[in-house]
Amino acid sequence: MQAFKLASRDFKSRDTIIEIPAADGPVFIGEGYCTIIAGPCAVESRESYLQIAEILKSMGVHILRGGLFKPRTSPYSFKGLGGEGLKIMIEAREQTGLPFITEIMDVRDIDYLYEQVDILQVGSRNMQNFSLLEELGKLDKPVMLKRGLSATIEEWLLAAEYILDGGNPNVILCERGIRTFEPYTRNTVDIGAIPMIKQLSHLPILVDPSHATGKWEMVIPVAKAAVAAGADGIMVEVHQDPEKALSDGKQSLTPQNFNKLYEQIIRLAEGEQKKVL
Amino acid sequence: MQAFKLASRDFKSRDTIIEIPAADGPVFIGEGYCTIIAGPCAVESRESYLQIAEILKSMGVHILRGGLFKPRTSPYSFKGLGGEGLKIMIEAREQTGLPFITEIMDVRDIDYLYEQVDILQVGSRNMQNFSLLEELGKLDKPVMLKRGLSATIEEWLLAAEYILDGGNPNVILCERGIRTFEPYTRNTVDIGAIPMIKQLSHLPILVDPSHATGKWEMVIPVAKAAVAAGADGIMVEVHQDPEKALSDGKQSLTPQNFNKLYEQIIRLAEGEQKKVL
Amino acid sequence: MQAFKLASRDFKSRDTIIEIPAADGPVFIGEGYCTIIAGPCAVESRESYLQIAEILKSMGVHILRGGLFKPRTSPYSFKGLGGEGLKIMIEAREQTGLPFITEIMDVRDIDYLYEQVDILQVGSRNMQNFSLLEELGKLDKPVMLKRGLSATIEEWLLAAEYILDGGNPNVILCERGIRTFEPYTRNTVDIGAIPMIKQLSHLPILVDPSHATGKWEMVIPVAKAAVAAGADGIMVEVHQDPEKALSDGKQSLTPQNFNKLYEQIIRLAEGEQKKVL
Amino acid sequence: MQAFKLASRDFKSRDTIIEIPAADGPVFIGEGYCTIIAGPCAVESRESYLQIAEILKSMGVHILRGGLFKPRTSPYSFKGLGGEGLKIMIEAREQTGLPFITEIMDVRDIDYLYEQVDILQVGSRNMQNFSLLEELGKLDKPVMLKRGLSATIEEWLLAAEYILDGGNPNVILCERGIRTFEPYTRNTVDIGAIPMIKQLSHLPILVDPSHATGKWEMVIPVAKAAVAAGADGIMVEVHQDPEKALSDGKQSLTPQNFNKLYEQIIRLAEGEQKKVL
Repeated sequence: MQAFKLASRDFKSRDTIIEIPAADGPVFIGEGYCTIIAGPCAVESRESYLQIAEILKSMGVHILRGGLFKPRTSPYSFKGLGGEGLKIMIEAREQTGLPFITEIMDVRDIDYLYEQVDILQVGSRNMQNFSLLEELGKLDKPVMLKRGLSATIEEWLLAAEYILDGGNPNVILCERGIRTFEPYTRNTVDIGAIPMIKQLSHLPILVDPSHATGKWEMVIPVAKAAVAAGADGIMVEVHQDPEKALSDGKQSLTPQNFNKLYEQIIRLAEGEQKKVL
Repeated sequence: MQAFKLASRDFKSRDTIIEIPAADGPVFIGEGYCTIIAGPCAVESRESYLQIAEILKSMGVHILRGGLFKPRTSPYSFKGLGGEGLKIMIEAREQTGLPFITEIMDVRDIDYLYEQVDILQVGSRNMQNFSLLEELGKLDKPVMLKRGLSATIEEWLLAAEYILDGGNPNVILCERGIRTFEPYTRNTVDIGAIPMIKQLSHLPILVDPSHATGKWEMVIPVAKAAVAAGADGIMVEVHQDPEKALSDGKQSLTPQNFNKLYEQIIRLAEGEQKKVL
Repeated sequence: MQAFKLASRDFKSRDTIIEIPAADGPVFIGEGYCTIIAGPCAVESRESYLQIAEILKSMGVHILRGGLFKPRTSPYSFKGLGGEGLKIMIEAREQTGLPFITEIMDVRDIDYLYEQVDILQVGSRNMQNFSLLEELGKLDKPVMLKRGLSATIEEWLLAAEYILDGGNPNVILCERGIRTFEPYTRNTVDIGAIPMIKQLSHLPILVDPSHATGKWEMVIPVAKAAVAAGADGIMVEVHQDPEKALSDGKQSLTPQNFNKLYEQIIRLAEGEQKKVL
Repeated sequence: MQAFKLASRDFKSRDTIIEIPAADGPVFIGEGYCTIIAGPCAVESRESYLQIAEILKSMGVHILRGGLFKPRTSPYSFKGLGGEGLKIMIEAREQTGLPFITEIMDVRDIDYLYEQVDILQVGSRNMQNFSLLEELGKLDKPVMLKRGLSATIEEWLLAAEYILDGGNPNVILCERGIRTFEPYTRNTVDIGAIPMIKQLSHLPILVDPSHATGKWEMVIPVAKAAVAAGADGIMVEVHQDPEKALSDGKQSLTPQNFNKLYEQIIRLAEGEQKKVL
């Protein structure tokens, strides 16, 4: 009855654990771990990115994030540094030893990004960009597939299936909120999707409470809820000066607030018997 | 700009803590506490209700629940025992010492229920039954106001405002899932509503993970998420034999599973520095 | 498989046509007719209501509308004239010969309204107020049942089933928009619900484009769409001076604009072979 | 306040009318016209496509449709004939003299399709595939931009803005239903979006009642509603033998039913003073 096969627990009952090589030893994403990904929404400048990378490293973050090509609803918004930003992320990796994730938006960027990036992210708006999914299926790099804004769980797993079916088993799911009628929050985190995915699939699932809520004050409680519900980690936005961020400042944590979140998440994850590297 | 006044933090910055008298000392609902309400969806028979009440008491539950008049989508479904059920709930209270909550659906039942019931519940479908809200505003009994199926947070707080404006300050909010396009779960718990309500209002907020998910397997993870996000407690359905329940069996926990939930919730609540009576 | 019985075409294949007695001969609502109901959102004063009633009569309206008890999201909004308003509506009926419809919100008002009102309306917020539906099932007066804000078609027909099952066959459905994520319009008219209801049920279906859109500029095109899709008529809000209306002014047509709508609807209805009285 | 500029009426008050060259004289899409696009969901074989093209030509259709690369939710569904299908569509254009529209899913197909196709379609799932939109902005071919499954009107116009901002003024909008909680229909046509778009923008807007409803019985009433609400035309699926269609058979009209639709639409459009070529 379920249309997905390779993504299902029936096909593979054991949890998929994804290993990301890193300078200080591999980082794992999957059941039993609590992996924390953090960084600014977009790479804005070399200086600021290297600085926040060092701060996050010192606080215990496992993977850095940062956008090179920002998918912006309006053509008139800041669209990212592109290739220039990639060089900065590579430098940050060299300095901190942390692997990094960035979003791919165009099939023509695959060759370019494949060699350098540790995890390729597919954004919500591209969850059903099947040409892109098919190309990512031909790689062996981990792919984080964000849930579409109004995608059902089945559609999401079928999008994962495109990548798996192409031959790439390294798929990480990321819940980032769905669209509802509620205007007070940007999106509604589907907290029930976490146990549902865990029941239906062997793939790891993270939660992005920053995009999901759109408000930094809600990031900590929603991140905690995600881990309590069984998520394998979280991805959050952190910026030295959120008010000056070129994109998504309202949802970014300051390093100080991120540190509070980190400590609470670690304590919660340990209570849940999850390994925190 | 906010249309609600008495419900807002601007009006009253201190958290409202509601005290429910009980044989073994009062039960509290509000910030700093983690209150657990449990029981079957409907009161089905004297024998079974007294039995489950004893079991739940022994496990540490604070308040019993049970439906007398079930609001059923179809006129052909089981609609509850009515007054006969009320006598059973009163007997259960006498036996266990636990206070109880039940739903009121009709303004004409107020006199009847007011004297006997410890907390009056307004269901989702009646969240904007303004005649009922106005009558409840004239009482001094605690009222639990469930969020409507597609009510915004503002509409929910405005419904609470009707009760507060009538003169009854004892309002408890209960998130029970909103309606979205996702077919795998019955409703989508709006986990972000918890921190949002805590920011906007001084009223207590509980979560009902049973109605919200419609699937017993999801009740434990979603209940944990609720407490991690800051909810002041949970209300769950428990039935000795869910497969034979006259309503909502699929979402009911067995006593064994409820006991697992209870232990995990208590541990989590203690980690969050909440008092568990 | 369908949970509704009496409301279904399988139970009764012939369309239900409802007859409303009126001074100049009966008004009909049902397949083959195009019935137009109009009036202000609320009865605001004797003078203004009698004036608009005369204007609407002269333009060809079949049934007058007007609210006595307004269900307002906030307890601080204008709530209607109540019994005073009813006397005004009765006077307007005497003057114009037109029957009228008004909303009932409280079971305790039934005796009061039953004798005087031609059609009793159940609003969206009360679509699943089962106590009210059961009482209306005991009457023989026509009941217009508005679709709940996020009610499925099946839930709507099951709510109608409550009235039919009680013994009252005179149920009129009214689509008034459902809640979606779109902020530009107040609600989203589910235009597909019209042919869907016509296929599933024998009951008449009208559309209320005023509440559905919340913007007077959209009322004419949406009303036309409703009739083209097969609706048996429309219910619209008209006010002499929308900017000064005590409720819902933004969605009210001026008499001039209503006249344009009327002419276009009549032409369209005639093209669709519907009888316009 | 509105984020879109080039797409807005404030920028250009006169309606954009798009001219598509064709063997028997140009076809127009825009205010004042009622343009009808029809064809099977996917090009399945040379014989069947040439046959249906002839039938549709004889019935008065203005533009042919047909999918070459089908965006399928599951990787295991029929995905179209690709380049082989393109040759068949070109042959159908030669035989019938009718221009055709087909969907582009991958930026790497632009060169390939640009030369041959009369209108390039961007599907719902790619509405925010910004790389693709940017490339289409560099062309001069008309682009039909379908609304995303849960895109707001503003997001839709901003996606159009990407194409306009790139230098291509030939954008046609197509409403194809949004995702709601209603399970009886596949999607909910946002009928109010038509007058809303006409007010906000100068761009033409069509409606696709086939994808929007997912049920062929609803296609005729919803198509009529679209034209009555002010749409500039419709795009519908027609198949000689819907039950054997390789995709979307349930929503396809037979040629006989399409002929009924065509006649009713023409009559309605004429009543609305629209030109039907």
